[in-house]
Amino acid sequence: MEPLNRFDLIGFDADDTLWDNESLYLNTQAAFKQMLARYRSLEYIDQRLFDTETRNLQYFGYGIKSFALSMIETAIELTDGQVLGKDIQLIIDLCREMLKAEVRLLDGVAETVAALAKDYPLMILTKGELFDQETKVARSGIADYFQSVEVVSDKTEAAYAAVLAKHRVAPARFLMVGNSLRSDILPVTAIGGHAVYIPYELTWAHEAVEALEGEKPYEEIASIRYLPDLIASMSRSG
Amino acid sequence: MEPLNRFDLIGFDADDTLWDNESLYLNTQAAFKQMLARYRSLEYIDQRLFDTETRNLQYFGYGIKSFALSMIETAIELTDGQVLGKDIQLIIDLCREMLKAEVRLLDGVAETVAALAKDYPLMILTKGELFDQETKVARSGIADYFQSVEVVSDKTEAAYAAVLAKHRVAPARFLMVGNSLRSDILPVTAIGGHAVYIPYELTWAHEAVEALEGEKPYEEIASIRYLPDLIASMSRSG
Repeated sequence: MEPLNRFDLIGFDADDTLWDNESLYLNTQAAFKQMLARYRSLEYIDQRLFDTETRNLQYFGYGIKSFALSMIETAIELTDGQVLGKDIQLIIDLCREMLKAEVRLLDGVAETVAALAKDYPLMILTKGELFDQETKVARSGIADYFQSVEVVSDKTEAAYAAVLAKHRVAPARFLMVGNSLRSDILPVTAIGGHAVYIPYELTWAHEAVEALEGEKPYEEIASIRYLPDLIASMSRSG
Repeated sequence: MEPLNRFDLIGFDADDTLWDNESLYLNTQAAFKQMLARYRSLEYIDQRLFDTETRNLQYFGYGIKSFALSMIETAIELTDGQVLGKDIQLIIDLCREMLKAEVRLLDGVAETVAALAKDYPLMILTKGELFDQETKVARSGIADYFQSVEVVSDKTEAAYAAVLAKHRVAPARFLMVGNSLRSDILPVTAIGGHAVYIPYELTWAHEAVEALEGEKPYEEIASIRYLPDLIASMSRSG
């Protein structure tokens, strides 16, 4: 007898879950720090950039263009307005390169997504800039495995609830997979959904959360390769 | 006998259809040109900015952050890199003010939308940056009249077809209302939908299209106030 599917929908975060993203930011940030290294220490530049990004989040939202504007503001501030036009241009050029960069799938993603798509409706559920995320999905080579793509401006409990309502999926029948406890895991389990955490080697400080006490309300695996087996075992026990 | 509704869904463009938007861009652009007026003529600055925006569209998409980055690039280019840090900062400050600006509904919008919402499911269907558009909808004071909000990265025929498919609405049962022939009207009529064009006094050059020859496949009214009567007459004749 075929077991019934435990989930009606499996959502995947995209950046640093399906494809590498954070290393693009880190490489650009390294070039940015090098440019300003004659003015300030690298640690100081890092801290001021993070402060600027955090302050701008409410106006600019997430994404590469926001990052570009925050780097430009930080460069002006740290140099007391002496930063050169060619350095500002370099920041914009670096960000345009990020937007054009090849989409590099993480290890195991292509096979795992292809296998799961045979049994489950899959969704890409990502936050950030619509235009940037859509073009990455289109360039990824795995778009056809996903029945839907949802880009939200922030991954809050309300945002997940709205997406699930739109797709008529009960939270208890939804599984989310991602690399950010803050964005992919905790808001989903908070509304009664299921979540699998796949840590990535690089994580932006903004996405970090304090260590949780007690029993974790989610599953954790080291590679997306283990996801089909984990889902099979969740289905047996569920 | 109550007439049956002619449409299953009425979509509204947002910027310059429901609320003023273009004047924010024009005011910022005026300040930008003033800043650079000692280097070049105002007409030349306008033309170079438009060229930069057009070139960047494929990488940056639409929206205020893209506009900011294109102004910064144009300022660097027109000054041979001599632009001052404080002027770049002013560009960013102006754009942050645009993102925070009060949402000013156009004349007649509040009453018309409230009246139509009694008889029809209404949707906001806008292009641009998700974060920016969502916060504007939330601040508009008329969000509750709309059953759904769809932000697309560009308003192509395919984008309209995808939105209608998602909402299970046949194009022939869909009416779109907007101020841009290029984005709101022609792609909708091309896929078999209906459209009402409400020109706005200000239109970005990018949205302009050549005058159409022959019979126009859409309705045109001078104010959103005439929309309920127009829809009533379309329903009688349809």
